[in-house]
Amino acid sequence: MVSSAINIAYLTGFRGSAGLLIQTDDSELLLLDGRYITVASEALARGALAPVSIEMVEKSYDAALATVITRLGVSDITFESDHVTVSALSRWQAAVPVNWRGMAGTIEELRLVKDVAEVAIFRRAGAALIGVASRLGEWVAAGRTEREVAADINRGLERAGFERPAFETIVAAGPNSAHPHARAGDRPLSAGDLVVLDFGGVLDGYCVDLTRMAAVGRLREEAGSIYRAVREAQQAALNVIRAGVTAGAVDAAARQVLDAQGLGAAFVHGTGHGLGLEVHEAPRLSSVVGAEELLRAGMVCTIEPGAYVPGVGGARLEDDVLVTDTGAELLTAGPRDLLAV
Amino acid sequence: MVSSAINIAYLTGFRGSAGLLIQTDDSELLLLDGRYITVASEALARGALAPVSIEMVEKSYDAALATVITRLGVSDITFESDHVTVSALSRWQAAVPVNWRGMAGTIEELRLVKDVAEVAIFRRAGAALIGVASRLGEWVAAGRTEREVAADINRGLERAGFERPAFETIVAAGPNSAHPHARAGDRPLSAGDLVVLDFGGVLDGYCVDLTRMAAVGRLREEAGSIYRAVREAQQAALNVIRAGVTAGAVDAAARQVLDAQGLGAAFVHGTGHGLGLEVHEAPRLSSVVGAEELLRAGMVCTIEPGAYVPGVGGARLEDDVLVTDTGAELLTAGPRDLLAV
Repeated sequence: MVSSAINIAYLTGFRGSAGLLIQTDDSELLLLDGRYITVASEALARGALAPVSIEMVEKSYDAALATVITRLGVSDITFESDHVTVSALSRWQAAVPVNWRGMAGTIEELRLVKDVAEVAIFRRAGAALIGVASRLGEWVAAGRTEREVAADINRGLERAGFERPAFETIVAAGPNSAHPHARAGDRPLSAGDLVVLDFGGVLDGYCVDLTRMAAVGRLREEAGSIYRAVREAQQAALNVIRAGVTAGAVDAAARQVLDAQGLGAAFVHGTGHGLGLEVHEAPRLSSVVGAEELLRAGMVCTIEPGAYVPGVGGARLEDDVLVTDTGAELLTAGPRDLLAV
Repeated sequence: MVSSAINIAYLTGFRGSAGLLIQTDDSELLLLDGRYITVASEALARGALAPVSIEMVEKSYDAALATVITRLGVSDITFESDHVTVSALSRWQAAVPVNWRGMAGTIEELRLVKDVAEVAIFRRAGAALIGVASRLGEWVAAGRTEREVAADINRGLERAGFERPAFETIVAAGPNSAHPHARAGDRPLSAGDLVVLDFGGVLDGYCVDLTRMAAVGRLREEAGSIYRAVREAQQAALNVIRAGVTAGAVDAAARQVLDAQGLGAAFVHGTGHGLGLEVHEAPRLSSVVGAEELLRAGMVCTIEPGAYVPGVGGARLEDDVLVTDTGAELLTAGPRDLLAV
């Protein structure tokens, strides 16, 4: 049984916020509530879904699940332990006396390496995102607020054909740039500000993610050196990434550059994350978690070192790559220069 | 221990995507990773957070949690079983030999009835949302695509001061209006279309949610009658809602109207849902789940019956109310007429 909406989308093509997929040796059943029956049936009819039997949930997913399991007459059912809460499992165990077995990472493992159709989407999405980035010079200007610039970026994402932003667009200026997860707020962009512009879009369900940097007027030397160090760190990571290298080695390449410039402690996150139907998925390029994982050809991930110095500012540069046997294909090929405004 | 990001936001004021809050009789500890330390410490310093001790997660939340529990020397720890996965609990049980007890709904129960400060936010947010709705006539026009109209609504939300849309804005025209969860797509609005316009915004962290209807040119009689039935159903629900009434009674009031007009089977969702830090929270106004729950003064919820007839079209009307002892205060007071374009 698959209960994660994202994993259901991956396996069937159905993209909703709820649903349960029950696979047996000879059947594939998608339980959906009334909100989704029409849209899913239509998608199935036009071949946009994998061949599944769609069954409507009348009362509740719990009740429908119990009915189906009883009807199937199975004695064992495997559930996704990373996506099922302790409460849900307790309810199911009480309702249906079968052997409930947890599995973790099984579907995510399938999602790790992108197939030809997925890579084609990523190439289109990466190019479209660079198209949006090429317009940053029109939008980023002294006196405009972070929020206004973010709204322009969101509009640019929409015009570029993205279904929606992949996450809440970040525009973080001056002191706010020192917060890796700042939100766009009311600060007007001011002379001397480093500006982090972090945005992404969803195309055909897949997420791409980019960060570019701007400088308003003349930067203090210390702020300029943060940008340059981050750029060098990103290039170092791009130089080492390829199939067969560990995730930790890519992170270490970026970290070494920042360490050497006294910015090791200012680099408070990992070097990158996988992209797919989710904007953060495996692999993680980190020195902490999953550092030993070997990268494989067909993985898609971000490369985004950053350094954040309270009181001075922060910088991050982020691009998306497809890991190959010999290196990486840059999906977001375009200028990475500090945008001077 | 509180692990739900929304519940942590409710209890502390800290709004991030990760974190663990550990409360003991005499301490309140917020574990955060490096991304959030600066922003949370600054918020704490200016009094924007509840008084908590912030502690940085160095390696992983699991490791930090184990360290803290060991240091506290507790033998029992209560976790949120609705928000903790089977996998996480297994890891914690293996790492820390204490008595792990599940609790469910404890913090959500606190969130159900809004306090004075929350009500003040809802009043501002409701008025701002009606301000956006008053501009629909500028944006909805024959020949424009659903997506273009949605982009205008999103821009309107931003200009009205909302931090972000509360969910992906729905503009569903013609046949798409028959899908309760349609997304805005490439369909141009065309003569004879019913158009569902469902949008919401987040203000100071709180979500409001509104649906209005438009008609392009002349509707078929059958489409017009769907709108009128839904409007009557919504009014019926608004007439009965007050503290002391069950959630199911409010749903039944709307459902009866649609049943009587042969649209009972076309009303495929509940009559409403609670609003708060999440756009869908308790109470649910449903005939199925939680129908026996008594409404209380201070609850805030949507009233949004709908009817969806494949091949003809669908309609939904949605407003937000604050439940009071004598009825309900309409937070989104404004015209609900079918917008003729």
